[in-house]
Amino acid sequence: MDPDLSPLDDYLDEAGLDGYLVDADSSDSTQRYLSGFDAPDPFVTLYTPETTALLVSALEYGRANRQSRADEVSRLADYDYRSLAGEHGPKAAKARVVAAWLDDRGVDDVATPERFPLGPADRLRERDVSVAHETEDVVTEVRARKTDEEIEHIRAAQRANEAAMDAAADLLRDAEISGQDGKRVLAVDGDALTSERVREEIEVTLLRHGCALDETIVACGADAADPHDRGSGPLRPDEPIIVDIFPRSKETKYHADMTRTFVKGEPTDTLREWFDLTHEALAAARDAIEPGVTGAAVHDIVCDVYEDAGLPTLRSDPKSETGFIHSTGHGVGLDVHELPRLSPDGDELRPGHVVTVEPGLYDPEVGGVRIEDLVVVTEGGSENLTRQPIELQI
Amino acid sequence: MDPDLSPLDDYLDEAGLDGYLVDADSSDSTQRYLSGFDAPDPFVTLYTPETTALLVSALEYGRANRQSRADEVSRLADYDYRSLAGEHGPKAAKARVVAAWLDDRGVDDVATPERFPLGPADRLRERDVSVAHETEDVVTEVRARKTDEEIEHIRAAQRANEAAMDAAADLLRDAEISGQDGKRVLAVDGDALTSERVREEIEVTLLRHGCALDETIVACGADAADPHDRGSGPLRPDEPIIVDIFPRSKETKYHADMTRTFVKGEPTDTLREWFDLTHEALAAARDAIEPGVTGAAVHDIVCDVYEDAGLPTLRSDPKSETGFIHSTGHGVGLDVHELPRLSPDGDELRPGHVVTVEPGLYDPEVGGVRIEDLVVVTEGGSENLTRQPIELQI
Repeated sequence: MDPDLSPLDDYLDEAGLDGYLVDADSSDSTQRYLSGFDAPDPFVTLYTPETTALLVSALEYGRANRQSRADEVSRLADYDYRSLAGEHGPKAAKARVVAAWLDDRGVDDVATPERFPLGPADRLRERDVSVAHETEDVVTEVRARKTDEEIEHIRAAQRANEAAMDAAADLLRDAEISGQDGKRVLAVDGDALTSERVREEIEVTLLRHGCALDETIVACGADAADPHDRGSGPLRPDEPIIVDIFPRSKETKYHADMTRTFVKGEPTDTLREWFDLTHEALAAARDAIEPGVTGAAVHDIVCDVYEDAGLPTLRSDPKSETGFIHSTGHGVGLDVHELPRLSPDGDELRPGHVVTVEPGLYDPEVGGVRIEDLVVVTEGGSENLTRQPIELQI
Repeated sequence: MDPDLSPLDDYLDEAGLDGYLVDADSSDSTQRYLSGFDAPDPFVTLYTPETTALLVSALEYGRANRQSRADEVSRLADYDYRSLAGEHGPKAAKARVVAAWLDDRGVDDVATPERFPLGPADRLRERDVSVAHETEDVVTEVRARKTDEEIEHIRAAQRANEAAMDAAADLLRDAEISGQDGKRVLAVDGDALTSERVREEIEVTLLRHGCALDETIVACGADAADPHDRGSGPLRPDEPIIVDIFPRSKETKYHADMTRTFVKGEPTDTLREWFDLTHEALAAARDAIEPGVTGAAVHDIVCDVYEDAGLPTLRSDPKSETGFIHSTGHGVGLDVHELPRLSPDGDELRPGHVVTVEPGLYDPEVGGVRIEDLVVVTEGGSENLTRQPIELQI
């Protein structure tokens, strides 16, 4: 799939630059997007409006020729890297090779991503290559607007995600409540049902559906009051259990993202109220999403719902440690977190943007609630890519 | 676990610098090592010989206080980030906040890792903070020497790795050979046994043993001739199948690494010869590993074994695309690839270094063979952390 990189062409033209340089491995999504190449160690991509060129090691050379989207592939040995390294050391040799390779292409003035590595940048500058990080997030903005094919990749990953969420819900639903008051836990076959067990079931399900992921959140009670706490230990009845899964398709590399909150047993009145309020905030935010609306405006809608009910948000108190203490959402694609943002600095939404909508409330005295869907902005408004039901009691 | 960072203290002292600055998420091993903190989005760590300080978002503040190894944790809101962002934009605001936070600590002259992000570095420089990437890989060198606790983490990950390799070997061993000459494939229960199926079994086994990983190599025949080809499609009898697994412990974040090559059926004479030669090179390299020997010398030993048998290596022909076309090994720890290197520029080995030893031979006409163990350098020599048997026919 070829991306539409005309915004990058325009940027280079307006800035009077020769090309866009990337030095990263393919876990860096800008690198993956521009090169179309999967490699575990850093390599170099030069993008110009005329051509995309890669500079790789001997090990990657064959595969880069076959699998990348580059028009030309060079290798370090083409520029005598090994003997230069013997003379100057590997880092200085690499800089000489890159400078010579750029010079062969008539390039001495490049823009780079925000997070281009400092050492290689400074060494190219010493060799009279002008290196400036571009300030406009150009490639990140390009990547934020998904093609139909990319949206299908994300939709497929969300389908896998739903199978995993179902597996988690099934485990919770089938669990028994065992133990005495004050020490009651969920149990399966006589053993306590733990975060770790549910996490394992989620991850095995995702693997069997072609997805990988690093961390899943299965957080119960007070653990759920910290939005990034992964959760651990036995799960308990009558307390909220937040399950947040953000898988990556192993084949396409695109992510999906979804959160549901469950209670096995009887939620407190406060928890029930928080769940309903969060569901209301989610629906209000989803309804507001359409081209032209800003991410900041969508985030404000969620803050309005919570503040109107008397709950703190980071808008009403930037140092609050309880209530709605994060942003409303983020882009999802090759990265789990990308543009656009549904946050105080969130820009205008446009067709092809894929964003999470994830209001939540947190307080160690209550626990936590979060409900997250994944939507794509369309010409006419938005489409929810998530079909998972939303219900508190399991 | 507290690392021994005295080499970093010495570096800062000799260079006359105030501190070491890192801007990265915890997938960056320098960040993970210095901060002791797991977080999916970039945050800032300042290391000085007296203190380690973190600068994080509101979302991470509570968890950073509880879980990191920092002496002090600040958050962006402490420096009025939100209103600065409204006035100057998020990136410029972040730079102002970091500069003020450094200034509060009497720091205006920092070293950074090689791959510190260019945008933040240049913006700090504009605010009169001196930012220079350090050229000596100091933290990477520190991380390369593992404490006893780290070695146990790696050993445990290799135990999980062996369970996964056994699962792969069992699938191959129990497979039937089906089909006609020229189109024979391995099959299980009537279906072709594919790379993908074996990979899934490996990954599920690893998950059940508490490990995650991104990619496993299960490459057959001509696919095996490209050292980084993950492999795909039906596996075939009489051809080499390279299985290379590099899991990460989900709890400790430490990696292990192992490769075995199998043939189901009858290997060709060339393949058998290549396997025996590779096993010989592996044993010779392992035997040579002890404190004081360089990685370059160990790599040379492997090149000697192959070249003496008439096979090309990158030493005898830097542009060769067949034969021994990669280095002998690399460090393993929080990263899959770290220092030290068993390669032409490999430095002196020291106790606590953990390295792979992975000779291999590749040619599309023959396939590929690689056998990889993982060893730790000890005071008296080395210890093999790998117990998996080495045998070609399964």
